[in-house]
This record gives sequence, C-alpha cells and structure tokens, in this order.
Amino acid sequence: MAGSAKETKELLCEFLRAFYQRVWVSGTGGGICALDPDGNMLLAPTGVHKERVQPADFFTIDVRDGSVVKAAEDPALRPSECGAIFRAAILARQATSVMHSHALSSVLAADLAGDRDHVAIRDLEMLKGVRGVANRDTHLVPVIMNTPRESELTDQVEAALKDDRFAAAHTILVRDHGAYIWGADLWETKRHAEVYHFLFEAIVARNRR
Amino acid sequence: MAGSAKETKELLCEFLRAFYQRVWVSGTGGGICALDPDGNMLLAPTGVHKERVQPADFFTIDVRDGSVVKAAEDPALRPSECGAIFRAAILARQATSVMHSHALSSVLAADLAGDRDHVAIRDLEMLKGVRGVANRDTHLVPVIMNTPRESELTDQVEAALKDDRFAAAHTILVRDHGAYIWGADLWETKRHAEVYHFLFEAIVARNRR
Amino acid sequence: MAGSAKETKELLCEFLRAFYQRVWVSGTGGGICALDPDGNMLLAPTGVHKERVQPADFFTIDVRDGSVVKAAEDPALRPSECGAIFRAAILARQATSVMHSHALSSVLAADLAGDRDHVAIRDLEMLKGVRGVANRDTHLVPVIMNTPRESELTDQVEAALKDDRFAAAHTILVRDHGAYIWGADLWETKRHAEVYHFLFEAIVARNRR
Amino acid sequence: MAGSAKETKELLCEFLRAFYQRVWVSGTGGGICALDPDGNMLLAPTGVHKERVQPADFFTIDVRDGSVVKAAEDPALRPSECGAIFRAAILARQATSVMHSHALSSVLAADLAGDRDHVAIRDLEMLKGVRGVANRDTHLVPVIMNTPRESELTDQVEAALKDDRFAAAHTILVRDHGAYIWGADLWETKRHAEVYHFLFEAIVARNRR
Repeated sequence: MAGSAKETKELLCEFLRAFYQRVWVSGTGGGICALDPDGNMLLAPTGVHKERVQPADFFTIDVRDGSVVKAAEDPALRPSECGAIFRAAILARQATSVMHSHALSSVLAADLAGDRDHVAIRDLEMLKGVRGVANRDTHLVPVIMNTPRESELTDQVEAALKDDRFAAAHTILVRDHGAYIWGADLWETKRHAEVYHFLFEAIVARNRR
Repeated sequence: MAGSAKETKELLCEFLRAFYQRVWVSGTGGGICALDPDGNMLLAPTGVHKERVQPADFFTIDVRDGSVVKAAEDPALRPSECGAIFRAAILARQATSVMHSHALSSVLAADLAGDRDHVAIRDLEMLKGVRGVANRDTHLVPVIMNTPRESELTDQVEAALKDDRFAAAHTILVRDHGAYIWGADLWETKRHAEVYHFLFEAIVARNRR
Repeated sequence: MAGSAKETKELLCEFLRAFYQRVWVSGTGGGICALDPDGNMLLAPTGVHKERVQPADFFTIDVRDGSVVKAAEDPALRPSECGAIFRAAILARQATSVMHSHALSSVLAADLAGDRDHVAIRDLEMLKGVRGVANRDTHLVPVIMNTPRESELTDQVEAALKDDRFAAAHTILVRDHGAYIWGADLWETKRHAEVYHFLFEAIVARNRR
Repeated sequence: MAGSAKETKELLCEFLRAFYQRVWVSGTGGGICALDPDGNMLLAPTGVHKERVQPADFFTIDVRDGSVVKAAEDPALRPSECGAIFRAAILARQATSVMHSHALSSVLAADLAGDRDHVAIRDLEMLKGVRGVANRDTHLVPVIMNTPRESELTDQVEAALKDDRFAAAHTILVRDHGAYIWGADLWETKRHAEVYHFLFEAIVARNRR
C-alpha cells in the first residue's frame, strides 16, 4: 500500500481536502503527515488553508531528530507545529501516518472527561474500526491538558503513549483543542480518523440525551 | 428497472459513494448488495473504504448457500461479513437488494428501544415512503442485540424477519451498531435507506426535545 | 426573469438537485412546479428520486382545472400528488412557483405549534427574506393537520390561504409532514425556501435551549 | 497576497460559493467585500443569490465616502446594504476585507449574550486562529442590537470598533441577525470566518449540555 513520495504527497493533499469538507481542519488548523519510502516524514506546512495544500508544500523531516531534510518549495512556508507530536506517535507506536483534527466533536468529547485523564468508549460496533479493538471492549482514550504552544504538548503526549491503560488507543484527545489520530499506514489513518470522529460524535450525542 | 450485472455494479458503487457522503458507511463500515440477472448476489468486499469500491471489487455469491460463484478481481479482497444477513433478508422478504448502515442516527434510534425489542414510529408522513405503510400506521421496527461478530447476528435477524409484528418493516436495527435496510430492487433500497434514516433522525430529535 | 418552458424545466431540475443535497426532498418525497410562458404549470412527477428528475419528466398542467395539457415523455410517470395544492397557492397568491419540502426541520417546526393552528416567528433578521415582511414583525405561519392522502389537504390549504392572519405567509406547514413554499417567480421560491428552512431551524434550535 | 481587481473579484465569488455551501449566506443574505489595488472597495450586490454572484456584478466603492466609483455591469443591481458597515470596519481596523454572515450559529451565539453587550469566548485552541489572540485569552466579542435597516447599525458598529474591551475582536455579532468578520486581507477574512463560526458553534454546543 506504500507509494512513492510523490504519490504519498498527492494522497495527503486529497485527504486534507476531505477532512476540510468534514470541518476537521478548518481555519488553517489541523494537519497531516506520512512517512515516505525512505522513512522520512512528509509534513504539511503551518498556517495555511489546509484544503489548498499542494504536494510541493510538504516538508521532508528526519523522524528521529526532527531536522528538515528537504524544505517546501515556497521559502515562505514553515513546517507544521505538529511535527514533534507526530514524531512521538510514529516512534512510540509504529505508526507511519498521523493526522491532527480540530473538529468540534473532538473538543466536546474531551469535555466529557471532566476531572479524569481519559474518556471511556463502549457499546459501539464502530470500535471494531480501531485496529485490535473489539466491540465489547471498554476503550480508553487519553485526554491531555492544552498548552499555550502546540510543541509544549509533547511531554504529555509521550506520557500518554507509554501509559499501559491506553495501549489500544490510536488517538490522544487534547482538551479544548482537538485530537491526534494515527495508523500503521495512511489508509489506516484515514479509517481511524473516520472511526474516532464517529465515536466522539456518538459519546457526545449519548451524553446529551 | 433491472440492469445487467455490469450496470448493477456501477449503480452499487454510485450508491456507496452517496451513502458515504451522508456518513452512513464511514470508517470502512457498512455495505451493500443486489441480485444480478442470474439471481446471484453481487456483494461488496469487507474492510475497504466504501466510497472507493469499484465494479471489479464485487463478489458474486450464490444466494441460497452463500458460496462464492465468482471472486473479486483483487485476490486480497474478501466478501463482506454482511453476506449471511443480506441473504436472510433476500430469502425471507423477496428483496433483491440490501444495504447496511453504520449511521449514528441508527445507533441513537436503537437506543430509544430501552428494554423493548423494537421502536415504534408514528405520526410521520415519511412512513409512506416505506412500501405498504400508511402515514397513520404505527410502524414497528425490530431492534436486535449486537454480537461480537456480524455473522452471529443471523439467528436474531431470521427471528425478526419471521415475527408477524414486524411484517411491514423493511429494516432491522442492531443496537450499538446500525441498520439493515432492503427493497424489492436497488432503487427501492435507496428510497428505503433515505426514508428510514429520516425516520431515525426524526424520532431521535423528537425524543430530545 | 421568466424563461422558456425548456429553460424553466432545466432550472426546476437544478433546484431539485440542490434541495436534495439539503435533504429537503429525500426518499422520493417533496416536489416543485413553476408556470411556463403560456401560464401552464410545469409539474414534477410523483414517486421518483427527485435529484434525478430530467426536463422530459415534467407534466404540463392547466392551472385552472388541473387537467393534463402535455404528459411526461415516459408513459410510466404520473404527476405529483402536490398538483392540487400547488394550484391553490398559485391561484390564491399570485405565485408562479411552489416547492414542497419534506425537511425534518419543517416537521419539528410544526411540532412547536402544539394545540395552535400556527407558529409565530419573530426576532430574526432573516424574516426580511420573505417578501413584504420586516424583521420586527411577528410572522404567523399556518400549521394544518396531515391527512392520509396529500390531495385531501387541499381544503385546509385553501382555508389557510384565505385566512387574514396568514396574509404575509409564503408557506404552509403540514404537521408531521413538511411545508409548501411559494414565490412570485422561481427565484423567489428558491429564496423563500432557503429563508423558511432557516427560520424553521432557528425556532427549533431556540426552543431546544 | 494582493491580486489584481479581476483576481480579487474571482476569489470573492469563490468564497461566496464556499460560504453558501456552509449556509452562512443563504436566502440571498450576507455579503463580502475586499479592497482592490487602488484601495477602493469591491462590493457584492444586494438581494441576489450569493452563490451565483459573478465578477461583473461587483461595485467599486470609494472607501472614504461610500460613493460609487464604478457600478456593476447589470444596471438592475444595487450595492449591498452592508457597504457602510464594511467601510467602518476597514477604516477603524486596517482591514482590507469583510464578510457578513447570516449563519444560524451566529444568531444562537448572540443569544448567549443575554442582557450583556458581548459574549466571552475562552478555553478553545481555535482562538489562536484570530490574529493576535492566544488560547488562554478570554476573548470578548461585541454583540449589538438589530435595527430595522442594516444601514442603521453603523453607529453601534462604530462604537464597538472604538471600545477598548473589544480591541482584539475581528468580528461583531448582531443580535437576531448574524456577524461581520474582517481580516487584514481576503485570506485572513476567510480564516477568521472559519475560526469565528467554529467558536460560535462551540459556545452554543457547550452551553446546551
């Protein structure tokens, strides 16, 4: 399922347009990345309208140290602030692709955590859409606190990734902010993005009634 | 209204794309089938992004015993787990097409059943969109329990199909999961899918106020 | 703004596709009409998927007596059951175009009438989108009872059209069913359809909080 | 990022189509403007279906005194009533582009003001999408009273623009009506429109639970 760097960039752009249609990456927020065949991270730029990102706009990043291997063609672009968090998920979870959602449903789902550091999702067939999860599982999704800058989330992200309670989670919710969602490849990230947004909407709707 | 196997597969793909737009078959969930002119069931594959299914991806299935008459072109594909349930509806109800929805509205509608084995829908003109139903009828839709695997739903599905209380229903709700919806032909299945999702949304909205 | 019969039919088809996207005419429900340059009513067929209606599918109807001047090309098609109600609105209100919505928001708005025969809409700038209405008006929209067959609504529709309390209304809500919305021409009907659906959604949302 | 007058008009039309899809400018309501390279305001016409506005439909307006420098090609068109308010925002805030939303979420967000003259938005990462605002800020958005005619809003708009409490706001909510949203250029106006509509939806949803 792995394609060339060129094909991967085109698919990343296509998925950004689809996520934008769902209002998951609006207001220039959110982001996406995937590994290229050399194992480097293709990372979308920051501060741009995500539905308009083009293949030439991606940065190629060394996933181990975060250094820029190859910059975007446009010198005015800077790599997304998500980079450090994306790298943490890739390194800790054998993911090769991560998306960052600013969907309202992810904010409202994180609200449900109250004083806890997680939300528990159960009694939904859609849980089977998360790799390794069964529909009778109680699926714990970590919820971390928001910080003034996105790069300051990294410590909490790394702690959540190491927490055994969250071993089955392929997402981290950030309170007041959104979600990071990853997968073993770009297609699994798309599936997980659709599955988790469904789950977020479901627990919000069930809590409302 | 019956077309060739080729035309039917193209229409099935078109409907999957339309259902995906409505978030009825997201996260690779959901499915669809229709009979071809030989009376065999054309069945979409499992575990794939439903808006991207192509005509060559369909399996041709013997509707009586479930055996594969002709596999999808891609040897990596497997037929949808919905197959046994689709066949049960076709055989019990003279349906020729069935769709399986993972819409959130179907999950929330099933929640309304509480301890009962059905939901009752009334006082909605849209009921006339279900073949044989009048807008003054109280329309009973069966609600069955979810199971760890989709194939394990078949016994409950068959019992619901035989239950006289549900003789007018062209759908079965599965708690925490979704709905199966069928019709005498593929166009009626599309109409019934639109009608039942409207009815699910309506009873959820009316219950909320 | 009036076009030829051919142009009018094409615009009617375009509007049906747009209304379908908004889930106002789903499940083959709903409908639309407009007068052609000869003053006859171009009427969509019944029981068809409204987003797929083609210009050749329209019936030409004598607006005074309801007789069919020219049938649709496909002999299997029958004119919409809305015909008698559309004619009543055209004759009573100098309308030249009427649409019939099955939107959920119109059903939920009619629910708000309770025991009354109308809903009152106020405190919304969007009221100015209705011809002749100011944003400080309290706008009364009649709500009639649903009947087993659509043609049986005509008496109530005619009574509402004559009722002085509803002189400013360009819509009639039918309980459990939907709405009829008209305008002086096809473009005003489109504007009124957008305006009234906004108003229905607004009063439902404000009542929920 | 500044383009020719021709390019700017095309982009304004594209954004109107996108805003219409989001139901921010339905029923012919809402509007948009941007400065051309000469510093004149390109203003959409009033009373037209906003998703159908073409480049030739724009008026060129002197931003200092509101006089028409160049009329739209179609002599039947008149400039939007938003003109005076757009000019006030441009002159007071160094904006070069303003949009006017009739979104339901903006009406419901303004409802939350109750007896106050503003709404306070906090605890949302999306606040960072507003230029100069941090996610730990409490962001005050002015809420003014609606008036019979849009031009009569200008005094209240000018007062809000001068109010130090609202120095960080790039929007003004009008009770029962909608919102004005501006930016340093047309792309920032698009970003701010997406950001503020997200914020409006978020405070309405959080207030509902």
